[in-house]
Amino acid sequence: MHYADGKRTPCEDVFPQQMASCSDLNTTAFIRRVILAEKPDLIVFTGDNIFGFDATDAASSMDAAFAPAVSANIPWAAVLGNHDQESTLSREGVMKHIVSMKNTLSQLNPPEARVIDGFGNYNLEVHGVEGSRLANKSVLNLYFLDSGDYSTVPSIPGYGWIKPSQQLWFERTSSKLQRAYVNKPEPQKGPAPGLTYFHIPLPEFASFDSSNFTGVKQEGISSASVNSGFFTTMVAAGDVKAVFTGHDHLNDFCGELTGIHLCYAGGFGYHAYGKAGWSRRARMVVASLEKTEKGSWETVKSIKTWKRLDDEHLTAIDGQVLWSKSSGSKHKLN
Amino acid sequence: MHYADGKRTPCEDVFPQQMASCSDLNTTAFIRRVILAEKPDLIVFTGDNIFGFDATDAASSMDAAFAPAVSANIPWAAVLGNHDQESTLSREGVMKHIVSMKNTLSQLNPPEARVIDGFGNYNLEVHGVEGSRLANKSVLNLYFLDSGDYSTVPSIPGYGWIKPSQQLWFERTSSKLQRAYVNKPEPQKGPAPGLTYFHIPLPEFASFDSSNFTGVKQEGISSASVNSGFFTTMVAAGDVKAVFTGHDHLNDFCGELTGIHLCYAGGFGYHAYGKAGWSRRARMVVASLEKTEKGSWETVKSIKTWKRLDDEHLTAIDGQVLWSKSSGSKHKLN
Repeated sequence: MHYADGKRTPCEDVFPQQMASCSDLNTTAFIRRVILAEKPDLIVFTGDNIFGFDATDAASSMDAAFAPAVSANIPWAAVLGNHDQESTLSREGVMKHIVSMKNTLSQLNPPEARVIDGFGNYNLEVHGVEGSRLANKSVLNLYFLDSGDYSTVPSIPGYGWIKPSQQLWFERTSSKLQRAYVNKPEPQKGPAPGLTYFHIPLPEFASFDSSNFTGVKQEGISSASVNSGFFTTMVAAGDVKAVFTGHDHLNDFCGELTGIHLCYAGGFGYHAYGKAGWSRRARMVVASLEKTEKGSWETVKSIKTWKRLDDEHLTAIDGQVLWSKSSGSKHKLN
Repeated sequence: MHYADGKRTPCEDVFPQQMASCSDLNTTAFIRRVILAEKPDLIVFTGDNIFGFDATDAASSMDAAFAPAVSANIPWAAVLGNHDQESTLSREGVMKHIVSMKNTLSQLNPPEARVIDGFGNYNLEVHGVEGSRLANKSVLNLYFLDSGDYSTVPSIPGYGWIKPSQQLWFERTSSKLQRAYVNKPEPQKGPAPGLTYFHIPLPEFASFDSSNFTGVKQEGISSASVNSGFFTTMVAAGDVKAVFTGHDHLNDFCGELTGIHLCYAGGFGYHAYGKAGWSRRARMVVASLEKTEKGSWETVKSIKTWKRLDDEHLTAIDGQVLWSKSSGSKHKLN
């Protein structure tokens, strides 16, 4: 969102004639419109929620940025980007403020990991339908990680990365969830699909060209300058079907590599670099449940995604299937 | 070493006229010669110590393979390769046998890491000279890791890799050692140099060509097919100056990347693929201590390496400086 001080904060990269009336409030209006159109069950904010350098007060800026989710009474989750700590609060302070807000499911860090790098590493379980036999089982797992801000290692320039402590926490959490899924009661053929959210794209996002992704790539992949292995860790874990990152405003593609879709959210905020005439956008993700012939809800059948553009009609584009029970096995046969 | 059953086990890739008299005993003879010539303070075996498929009994094979170090009363350390478990013992069994042997400093796994992947992850501290002010301080740190054998992840082909649990152990161990080095008593300007030993080269070994390494590259880099981030973890830790791996018998180079030398040991064993006419070889590493004007021994001043060829004169080749106190700071200025 790159939110700063609301009405006083100008837009970037819109047409000259739009500048006078354009501010952070356009970002707010866009969220509101998407919420009305999609009625989401969960909103995930993938970092750079505020643009710290221009936010006079980090807490007020966050309150304003997340207000549409809060006031719509929709559960929401956020991770940190590289700009969130540039105002009056540290990264820890920002994350602490976020977890104190209304309707959020965000967490500061996993209670069981004694020491972990970063702030805002946590996971959420999406259980089966209430009243169904899977009500106590997580049928969809969401992982949230702090991909850091900037390297603090002199010999490594550029952005931060996901550290071994975080990867170990992810690995163990995924493993624990997979065991629970295949064990009694209601043992399932595992694993349940997982989705991972963080801010800075992985080096592996650079593996694609337009022949093998959906969406556009209009700028370089601003990953860390080193590979810290999280893609390998996710592939090895075996349950993650898609990764969603922010960071690069002009890239909005999804490409599949070794069974995992690597997806950009797409540039959303108006006080953020973008491209005049290329609409701000937001990514939707829908997990659909299987239904038995008798009408009872089961496990996740498919995960689809598309984007909504901030144009007159909130045009939906680039619909694609990220995972389905059948495609999962198809991939193994290849 | 690729040791199997001793005299009964034929050599590979030697000239036809050598075949009749060539066996594992040539590997043994080569170690003995190197020991006599160099009188090392420590011998490190970088995996594929035995070639399991051809070893009738893993324990006997290891006893014979390590015998020259044992009988010379020289401390030695070993890590596992991808072939060590292919005989009558599992990887755990092989490592347990190794740690039970005489004169070894090998360890099964760090006692403080409750759960860690692999077997043979440990570190050794090399303290300052006995009687000197640094006698209780580790002035050189050696890290040993199990780089696995083969991927067990269906979608990832090829060799194993160093996992998050091992990287976190390394990171914490390095950090602890660095704190101890700069703290009282005898606080040093840290960190003490570190050297890392494991079997399978990292993907980053493929970063070089003949213009920027010393030695030869006569085959591809048989790293894992994925990057698990251990190079990044080592650079971030900041103390490791060189990495030594085995695995590729026909590569014997050292190349520097981001302040870390990535070095092959060079093919050593005779029951292992090689190249007739291209001598089997062993890498030497010497850490030299600084001496004050008053004659007392201080911290490590430089780390050098060269290789010895198994020819008539045990020819020493490819001498190079891996690190020196001054070059460490030079690197930062570049």
